[in-house]
Amino acid sequence: MKGIAILGSTGSIGRQTLDVIRNFRHHFRLVGLAGWTNRSLLQQQLDEFQPDLACCQGLEGEGALLRLGKGRAATLEEMVRDPRVDLVVMAISGPSCLVPTLQALQGGVAVALASKEAIVMAGPLIAGLVGKGATVLPVDSEPSAIWQCLQGEPREVQRLILTASGGPFRSRPLGELAFVTPKEALEHPTWRMGRKITVDSATLMNKALEVIECHWMFGVPWEDIEVVVHPQSVVHSLVEFRDGSLKAQLGPPDMRLPLQYALFYPQRVANPKLERLDLARIGSLEFAPLEAGRYPCFTLALEAARTGGTYPVALCAADDVAVSLFLEGKLGYLDIPPLIQGVLDGHASGDGESLNDILEAEAWARRRAQEMARTRT
Amino acid sequence: MKGIAILGSTGSIGRQTLDVIRNFRHHFRLVGLAGWTNRSLLQQQLDEFQPDLACCQGLEGEGALLRLGKGRAATLEEMVRDPRVDLVVMAISGPSCLVPTLQALQGGVAVALASKEAIVMAGPLIAGLVGKGATVLPVDSEPSAIWQCLQGEPREVQRLILTASGGPFRSRPLGELAFVTPKEALEHPTWRMGRKITVDSATLMNKALEVIECHWMFGVPWEDIEVVVHPQSVVHSLVEFRDGSLKAQLGPPDMRLPLQYALFYPQRVANPKLERLDLARIGSLEFAPLEAGRYPCFTLALEAARTGGTYPVALCAADDVAVSLFLEGKLGYLDIPPLIQGVLDGHASGDGESLNDILEAEAWARRRAQEMARTRT
Repeated sequence: MKGIAILGSTGSIGRQTLDVIRNFRHHFRLVGLAGWTNRSLLQQQLDEFQPDLACCQGLEGEGALLRLGKGRAATLEEMVRDPRVDLVVMAISGPSCLVPTLQALQGGVAVALASKEAIVMAGPLIAGLVGKGATVLPVDSEPSAIWQCLQGEPREVQRLILTASGGPFRSRPLGELAFVTPKEALEHPTWRMGRKITVDSATLMNKALEVIECHWMFGVPWEDIEVVVHPQSVVHSLVEFRDGSLKAQLGPPDMRLPLQYALFYPQRVANPKLERLDLARIGSLEFAPLEAGRYPCFTLALEAARTGGTYPVALCAADDVAVSLFLEGKLGYLDIPPLIQGVLDGHASGDGESLNDILEAEAWARRRAQEMARTRT
Repeated sequence: MKGIAILGSTGSIGRQTLDVIRNFRHHFRLVGLAGWTNRSLLQQQLDEFQPDLACCQGLEGEGALLRLGKGRAATLEEMVRDPRVDLVVMAISGPSCLVPTLQALQGGVAVALASKEAIVMAGPLIAGLVGKGATVLPVDSEPSAIWQCLQGEPREVQRLILTASGGPFRSRPLGELAFVTPKEALEHPTWRMGRKITVDSATLMNKALEVIECHWMFGVPWEDIEVVVHPQSVVHSLVEFRDGSLKAQLGPPDMRLPLQYALFYPQRVANPKLERLDLARIGSLEFAPLEAGRYPCFTLALEAARTGGTYPVALCAADDVAVSLFLEGKLGYLDIPPLIQGVLDGHASGDGESLNDILEAEAWARRRAQEMARTRT
């Protein structure tokens, strides 16, 4: 039995991970569950899965109030370092995923990484750990697609092609984007995901973060990673090999598929609960070039990543703040990119190779974004 | 340097194989070239590539009239058994490919098999040889796509999905098919190929032969191989894995890509002469169910294959005769399937496990098809 800890178990990815595990109870030992603020759902999960460890860090001191059965309360660090854990599913939304990810990897525990912010903020650090034998498994559907396509021939790559649905505003006249409401931004055309990532998908920030993730995870140069718009989200991504041949990974837009792939890797296991893809019924798969002017977040994010240092850290923190403010109705949709750009413009980058550097840049950028937003309003 | 013999060097596949080798002269030693009746093209090829061995079996006794340079004349058998040959590219059209294929495999020489008739006629024999260590590499674009998708995880298959362009008459009213001329049947919408295979692509006989090839080559049960119509011939085929995830192989419709893959396997090599695929420019990939009533050859071929014995042999021989007669204007397009069905109906099947059985069935079916065609007219 593989020992699993799920960090962020009450979020969208966490819940879907538990849904997979529910179908394969005899394959996994659920060692730990960590939630953030959704205490009642975490309690339900604890009651159902009876893990050895539980953490509810978002409610300071309230962890003790959870009914733990035979388990006990633990910090995130204790959880990822518990010797019974073979695989950490990292599903904490936003920059808080970084420290426990590094702790797990440094302790020799494999991480199934749904929280791409960790690798965006600490790409060189994580790539360095992987170079020394640490294991990071992609969970997000596009990096998972790349990973699946690379099976058997990881060294023959010429180009990665990530697909992007284009988000809910792909065809909306540019002049109307100023009036986009949080409700509209949360209506993703193909994927059901958490709130932060859904807004990031509308701005294509999320796609930029995936490009950055793939750069570090698969060691492919920036100029060899492309994005193509594919509204149906059926082809999850493609690899072009040296000879010009391409492989694509396809499936229904259901996160449980890449999650299950990471949980069982290198095995594949039938799951009758997952819908099967019927190409003849789908009829047509469409592809279009990325309309650059429509997605300023995409462009500024990749610039920050290519510049390196702690710019990607500032990017993640600023985006996290900007999206929160947008969801609270305190920032307009079109004010997201200039807010992030403003933070990046004022950032004095460190070299980004130590955790301290990264955490400082994160805190600075978060403060700076909040200040800028206040000044603005 | 890999020693290569090309059997059928003057046909479409043979010429394209030489075109690939022309770009990678220092990777290959061209040990042998065998043509059939196109003496002048074979002479050009001999002059250019100066192989060690040459064969022009179609012109009895005329092999000696070829200018051989430092090479010498040889039979097909001598050629495939020459110790300098590491890989035989089997590109002889129709049932004559069988004997030299078996000779190569029995002699421990790998075969890149463009001539799917060999494996259709002698599936159990060839699968048996492969089970004992012989190597057969697919060359045809669909089986090659399956092979590429299986890299790294050959044992996790749930289903193979072969794509079919649907041929030039996919949308023609069924009532008009009786008037199809050889010229129309030779105008394939996406692939440029030899005459026999182009007609087989119009009737979808070719797709049935590919299903049979994949059954034997990849050991996948009949009921787990499906065909989907995909008019653009960009997605060359797909594999569905046990967890419901699919991989597809894509590329421009250019036979040199799968040929090169087989020649260099397991390496992939850049070839600037091959066009690259641009999904955003292509825009849309379409898929549709196979319209069963439109393609009687497809149905009868799979029935013959599933029945087994020497029925697949009779199928290949009857189809070979029927297509020749159609191309000569001696048989109508809609008379092809009943002619083949008639031969199959009258066939007394052997067990198909000895070469003798197979060759006898082949000769019988060929005579029977010719008789039936004569009676008909």
